Amino acid sequence: MNEFEQWLESAPMEIDYLAHLAAQQRQQQLTKPAGSLGQLEDIALSLAGMQGTPNPKVEKIQITVFAADHGICAEGISAFPQAVTVEMVRNFSRGGAAISVLAKETQANLDVLNMGTIAEIEELSGVYDYRIAAGTDNFLKQPAMTLEQCLQALAISRQYVEQLKHNQIDLFIGGEMGIGNTTSATAIASALLDINPIELTGAGTGLNKIEIQHKAAIIHQALNHHHSELTSPLAILQHLGGFEIAALAGAYISCAKVAIPVLVDGFISSVAALMAEYLCPGTKNWFLYSHQSSELGHQIILKHLAAKPLLHIGMRLGEASGAAVTIPLIKLSCALHNSMATFAEAAVSDKA
Amino acid sequence: MNEFEQWLESAPMEIDYLAHLAAQQRQQQLTKPAGSLGQLEDIALSLAGMQGTPNPKVEKIQITVFAADHGICAEGISAFPQAVTVEMVRNFSRGGAAISVLAKETQANLDVLNMGTIAEIEELSGVYDYRIAAGTDNFLKQPAMTLEQCLQALAISRQYVEQLKHNQIDLFIGGEMGIGNTTSATAIASALLDINPIELTGAGTGLNKIEIQHKAAIIHQALNHHHSELTSPLAILQHLGGFEIAALAGAYISCAKVAIPVLVDGFISSVAALMAEYLCPGTKNWFLYSHQSSELGHQIILKHLAAKPLLHIGMRLGEASGAAVTIPLIKLSCALHNSMATFAEAAVSDKA
Repeated sequence: MNEFEQWLESAPMEIDYLAHLAAQQRQQQLTKPAGSLGQLEDIALSLAGMQGTPNPKVEKIQITVFAADHGICAEGISAFPQAVTVEMVRNFSRGGAAISVLAKETQANLDVLNMGTIAEIEELSGVYDYRIAAGTDNFLKQPAMTLEQCLQALAISRQYVEQLKHNQIDLFIGGEMGIGNTTSATAIASALLDINPIELTGAGTGLNKIEIQHKAAIIHQALNHHHSELTSPLAILQHLGGFEIAALAGAYISCAKVAIPVLVDGFISSVAALMAEYLCPGTKNWFLYSHQSSELGHQIILKHLAAKPLLHIGMRLGEASGAAVTIPLIKLSCALHNSMATFAEAAVSDKA
Repeated sequence: MNEFEQWLESAPMEIDYLAHLAAQQRQQQLTKPAGSLGQLEDIALSLAGMQGTPNPKVEKIQITVFAADHGICAEGISAFPQAVTVEMVRNFSRGGAAISVLAKETQANLDVLNMGTIAEIEELSGVYDYRIAAGTDNFLKQPAMTLEQCLQALAISRQYVEQLKHNQIDLFIGGEMGIGNTTSATAIASALLDINPIELTGAGTGLNKIEIQHKAAIIHQALNHHHSELTSPLAILQHLGGFEIAALAGAYISCAKVAIPVLVDGFISSVAALMAEYLCPGTKNWFLYSHQSSELGHQIILKHLAAKPLLHIGMRLGEASGAAVTIPLIKLSCALHNSMATFAEAAVSDKA
């Protein structure tokens, strides 16, 4: 077994169920009808278990957007031109993108990791160059990446997250930017779950009905083309993935191995999360779920993760934006849990 | 027509549709696929229309919890003893309640208006004494209040909101505290919408199935008892309402008349909002909706208001807590709208 395989096979960190229980006992004493804060109660308890304390907190937050381009764009599967990936990386850095605004407003740190845009990008504040290649290959015709490239993407984000651990962050949010990447994500999910792509293929950045059918047909052909090679989650990732999707999966696995809670974003991030769970079972114990996007397949992916996201507000932007919007709810969940008075403290009568 | 009737009949302020349109035009230029921020886009546009600017903002926020007791508690319709209303008012003031924590975390100002608790309350920071009576009468046997008391509740909150207007607040959130008030709210909604109470009666603070049936039966009897008197929205409010529900309705109407956007909270607040719309049509043009609670009837009330709330996270606490939890999403909606770059500004290619 090589070093990578050893790492992958090592178990994720255990959730601290005693801390979870202690938090639950505290919660039952707070001055409110039991359960009346709904999912906000669940979030606080989950974080308590992950952070190993009855008083979880989310102060230091890392948002990392992985960017890369996709050879499958040659098949006309996106509403936007491929140049937008690089252009948006610049927009992230200059503060004009949704995730830039959200990171600033939520006091989260934002990094952008360039995993493989078609063009080189000049030096930009907050953008780190890890380009593996000038985009993936067109997976309709050949594997999206070599096994080596796939492992490289996983290794980069693994190392990145291990460094984050030293910064003692309370919550990790991964996001993605890459024109064409809903096509890659849909192909991965179809292969992992053995679902007909038409059931998972959505509008991405804004395809119409006929364009969506074309996109699904391309994915269907690609799955047939690679059929005999798709024998493991890693092979699926290599043949159909994107550098940013592989990096996201690697980051999630790494978070689970170093005990950093993860807040999962939308469709593509959720497919990466599903891939991470397939590659390293137990990774998902470290996941919180932010939102259900309006991208067609997201609900199915979330169901397979047994996920109960907080928001259903029709977002479908990616960039970690849905997760970033959820940050204040996670913070409020902790504040309520830690700062509310108990019935005894407040001299309030409990249920008759 | 007396002064109150004149006030009630005067039209709510008009929404500024030019500002709404200008905001919409800006939104279409922002660096994201059109519509990809989902309901966050709608919120920014609605606020633009209410505030009369293409760049809406929500900085100064007022949360006001109206508290009162209910004579109907004599019928055993609540899981908590009636003393809890007063005890929770103290808890609000001392910072231990959910809404206290949420107001602090969201930098909103919190006032508590005592509209009529069974007992007098000592002077407390942030609590204002407007006690109309020591709770309403038991509406199973007599009108909950006299017409004079009902008008008094509406007048108190009207005057209160008119003062708020001088403080130039950007958003008003009303909430309620009153053991027994889901029974009153359910009775009001059943009468307004002519729905069998069993379809609207929920668990409140935590009734079991048999207790819920008892509660619905009490409401059913009360509706029969007052049937011939329930000839107008105001009569329904007087016979079945609570002082805090009447005050909430008055506050909403007043907000619409002085152009303050309202963020509606959960079941009881939504019934008050529905009552406000019945009393003064057009009031609802000033409503934003925060969450759909897990209280059984809330979904039906929201449907009648054509409301599309942001959150569905199973909250059912009242106290304005669901609305307060939504504040950060409203703020982020404005920040995204105002601070994102346009395609031109960021030199990002638009849809092909």
